[in-house]
Amino acid sequence: MLEGTPFKNKGVIITGGGTGLGQSLCLKFASYGASVYTFGRTESTLEETKQRVNAINGNLEYKAIDIRNFDAVNEFIDETFRKIEIIGLVNNAAGNFISRTEDLSMNAFKSVIDIVLMGSINTSVQVSRRWMERKIRGSVVNILTSYADTGSAFVTPSAAAKGGLRAFTRSVAVEWGPKGIRTNGVAPGPFKTQGAWKNLIPDDSYEKILKEKNPMRRLGTTDDISELVSYLISDYSSFINGEIITIDGGEWIQGAGQFNMLSQIDDNMWDMIRKNRVKKE
Amino acid sequence: MLEGTPFKNKGVIITGGGTGLGQSLCLKFASYGASVYTFGRTESTLEETKQRVNAINGNLEYKAIDIRNFDAVNEFIDETFRKIEIIGLVNNAAGNFISRTEDLSMNAFKSVIDIVLMGSINTSVQVSRRWMERKIRGSVVNILTSYADTGSAFVTPSAAAKGGLRAFTRSVAVEWGPKGIRTNGVAPGPFKTQGAWKNLIPDDSYEKILKEKNPMRRLGTTDDISELVSYLISDYSSFINGEIITIDGGEWIQGAGQFNMLSQIDDNMWDMIRKNRVKKE
Amino acid sequence: MLEGTPFKNKGVIITGGGTGLGQSLCLKFASYGASVYTFGRTESTLEETKQRVNAINGNLEYKAIDIRNFDAVNEFIDETFRKIEIIGLVNNAAGNFISRTEDLSMNAFKSVIDIVLMGSINTSVQVSRRWMERKIRGSVVNILTSYADTGSAFVTPSAAAKGGLRAFTRSVAVEWGPKGIRTNGVAPGPFKTQGAWKNLIPDDSYEKILKEKNPMRRLGTTDDISELVSYLISDYSSFINGEIITIDGGEWIQGAGQFNMLSQIDDNMWDMIRKNRVKKE
Amino acid sequence: MLEGTPFKNKGVIITGGGTGLGQSLCLKFASYGASVYTFGRTESTLEETKQRVNAINGNLEYKAIDIRNFDAVNEFIDETFRKIEIIGLVNNAAGNFISRTEDLSMNAFKSVIDIVLMGSINTSVQVSRRWMERKIRGSVVNILTSYADTGSAFVTPSAAAKGGLRAFTRSVAVEWGPKGIRTNGVAPGPFKTQGAWKNLIPDDSYEKILKEKNPMRRLGTTDDISELVSYLISDYSSFINGEIITIDGGEWIQGAGQFNMLSQIDDNMWDMIRKNRVKKE
Repeated sequence: MLEGTPFKNKGVIITGGGTGLGQSLCLKFASYGASVYTFGRTESTLEETKQRVNAINGNLEYKAIDIRNFDAVNEFIDETFRKIEIIGLVNNAAGNFISRTEDLSMNAFKSVIDIVLMGSINTSVQVSRRWMERKIRGSVVNILTSYADTGSAFVTPSAAAKGGLRAFTRSVAVEWGPKGIRTNGVAPGPFKTQGAWKNLIPDDSYEKILKEKNPMRRLGTTDDISELVSYLISDYSSFINGEIITIDGGEWIQGAGQFNMLSQIDDNMWDMIRKNRVKKE
Repeated sequence: MLEGTPFKNKGVIITGGGTGLGQSLCLKFASYGASVYTFGRTESTLEETKQRVNAINGNLEYKAIDIRNFDAVNEFIDETFRKIEIIGLVNNAAGNFISRTEDLSMNAFKSVIDIVLMGSINTSVQVSRRWMERKIRGSVVNILTSYADTGSAFVTPSAAAKGGLRAFTRSVAVEWGPKGIRTNGVAPGPFKTQGAWKNLIPDDSYEKILKEKNPMRRLGTTDDISELVSYLISDYSSFINGEIITIDGGEWIQGAGQFNMLSQIDDNMWDMIRKNRVKKE
Repeated sequence: MLEGTPFKNKGVIITGGGTGLGQSLCLKFASYGASVYTFGRTESTLEETKQRVNAINGNLEYKAIDIRNFDAVNEFIDETFRKIEIIGLVNNAAGNFISRTEDLSMNAFKSVIDIVLMGSINTSVQVSRRWMERKIRGSVVNILTSYADTGSAFVTPSAAAKGGLRAFTRSVAVEWGPKGIRTNGVAPGPFKTQGAWKNLIPDDSYEKILKEKNPMRRLGTTDDISELVSYLISDYSSFINGEIITIDGGEWIQGAGQFNMLSQIDDNMWDMIRKNRVKKE
Repeated sequence: MLEGTPFKNKGVIITGGGTGLGQSLCLKFASYGASVYTFGRTESTLEETKQRVNAINGNLEYKAIDIRNFDAVNEFIDETFRKIEIIGLVNNAAGNFISRTEDLSMNAFKSVIDIVLMGSINTSVQVSRRWMERKIRGSVVNILTSYADTGSAFVTPSAAAKGGLRAFTRSVAVEWGPKGIRTNGVAPGPFKTQGAWKNLIPDDSYEKILKEKNPMRRLGTTDDISELVSYLISDYSSFINGEIITIDGGEWIQGAGQFNMLSQIDDNMWDMIRKNRVKKE
């Protein structure tokens, strides 16, 4: 989508580069010329991402680090800054439990909040401190979810963590904006290869239901999201700051609007309603 | 709910006092001691409201006026201010079409926007001008709807009009606040006797569907709403200003949250999911 | 504000009952007939609250507990349920740092998130589990802040924690609503005795600035907030669920609206602008 | 920003092509290969736009039409569909009054609401009807403003009209999404050449104030906005629907967040606060 290689000779840090969306983000930024740095828990999936980036002649380095290990993360960030001018950070690493809330232990909450909220705050602060010291203009994108705002039953640790990250996003956008650091969020709806749904329903049968409740009658793709994130990291969006962009085909508003369920009425029925109404007018 | 008769010797103007919600509002404010002034298109329903208010020893005066007749409305407001100290205004009058948007003429849009948006702006400005001249502290409540924010298919003239009134509410809350005038909104979800649903489905079969998609498993009542409006007009809420309060049992967020549809999973199934999860941990 | 003693023979748990707002909440609920149970870190302030509640012939029991000590909290909740039918929970305990974000250690974030977010989630889950087991209808109010939604610079640990609690509020409102448990939030703007401002500026000079940027030209009081919370815990609000009610005089929208700064233009100037405009029309 | 000429052999309708933003939009879409069709009230400014589009070898046709003349607008739309496959509509035409609300006549409100709200609804319905008949996938972008959501004092006709258009945007996104029509909004903050500010303060002195209250310390440019609109009309954003994207540098959240005014504290002062805090910990 973007013209040329806008991130050439620049570095971008992407957390969680071994998952579906993380891998797509790494590929996209590499294809736009960035040197990509990523970390995650599982070496094998990170190595797979590296292979795929190499296959398109892109640059990627990774390290197997748990995002909750703040010291290791900081050391990793330190190294990247020594190698190249880092201009972007994408906080993508996440964790989730689909469960009745009353079944969860506080450790389950702690685990998700530590990864999603504390983990993303740590990388944001670490990277931004370095940008301020070096007077580099940087851009952060936090991967949220439509339910960071609306909440959602049955994924409450994730809702709490992403909701916290949403408020943090808007907070530092204002605080760090004058120092040249933009911070925005991207809030995807359900998309293919998303961990949470796949774990709950191993086959693809959930896709049919999700498509029906989406105005665009499809699921998102990781590519849809990666293009938007690229735009937000790039200078083309240099006046967008503190904004959360939802990319879900209109899924959440489809559910939210009071009369939207009338979309189940077919056109013949509507024709009858219309004729009836016209007669009365 | 409120103690005593907080509106004794005070007047409140309520538009559209002949409808279900309008009638409930008139009764509630009269029961709290207010002299109620109302107008609407249909004399007979207004007269019915008056009879019911009289039956509880309340005071109500009405006039049959179309809210789009600005001159007649202004004259009516003038009269009320000559009689008593008006301290509240409730913009309740509304109109709606349930229809595919592409079937509607621009006249249908004009009709709803003139009643809901222009009509409410006119009463707000007329009443507030008099408050400023007389240095009276006043309170306005605009009856909105949950879809003033989220939008809704198939009722787009109403969504546009209520969405406009929502922004107007927040605008004058800031502009007129320093002059002692508070402006707030109440956004009901579906409630019993609501015109739009009744017109579409004449019997009560729609109630079952609406209950199921509501976390509280019931519809709202006009009494639920009238108590909240009374609180917002009263001095008990004197620090609430420019706020839109949704009263819908959680209906819109039930639809909005991505995983909320899992509420269809029953407890046995959840027990299985839980055991499966615990094993894996 | 509420008629009579709506919480007679019922228990309400209020966290952080030794602070300014916590104390006001305890007094208000006691005055409405509730048996109040509270805990906090500092025995002396809790004892002060107890003395004040006793002085109005109210019932209150407290224990000095750090909300991060989940075992102690759960034991405390257990005791309350053995004594009386608990019908309400107010999550009021909070912590805050006013600081540039880049100056904060991750421990500072952890501390606030553990108190505000993890602490409130723990009490919510513990109390709600007991309600489900006993099939009691209960109501939870989480004390948020206007910046739980908008974010705020210089208080980012609190923004992150409250933002997380906001999403959790909406999530469990949907999940637990069908089981008879309502969950709502109250989002105050700046109010008197609020810890954060007092700590930054020990005298009251900050009040003047805060009043000027508030459409109501005053700060909130803890009483404003306590009345609203009482309404939300009571059955009078039984159709309000998953809602966040802002009570800030319109402060945040005063700052947000693009042309609101024109409120600095005085009436003479506006008269000139008006005459100029009228001439051109 | 976008690669190549994504709109080649396609037509885009842009209302109000003679104003600052409208002209920028026409130039941008023409540069991406679109045949641009525009109308507005003033022939001379439209002709100027055409000259500028021709100068970059672009295609543009215009007609002098008042958007409130629905018949003329519909005829114009009819002609465009006969010439080329129209795939995009940008509702940009606007009107505004900066004034105390109580000084405005209802005609002032009517005028702005007719242009911004009724005018945009009419073009949306007319264009979308043709897309449905021809089974063309189309994309609509409505130019809103950050105060469509937050409201704003002193521009209340515009706030009401844009707030209405915001709700309409979300409504038809859901209703028409399944028919292949996406509808989104772009909400700019203050930008250079914006009519409202220029009319109030003829010189550029307002720019200084607006820059200071913006985290990015600059105003937006029409080019910032036009690139975003291009992305939203293009297929690159095909999973974004019903979304309102704010592009304001973070201006509205800068005003909204409670502690954001502390950005006036300089770094020396923060150093003192930090040392003080560290000592106490």
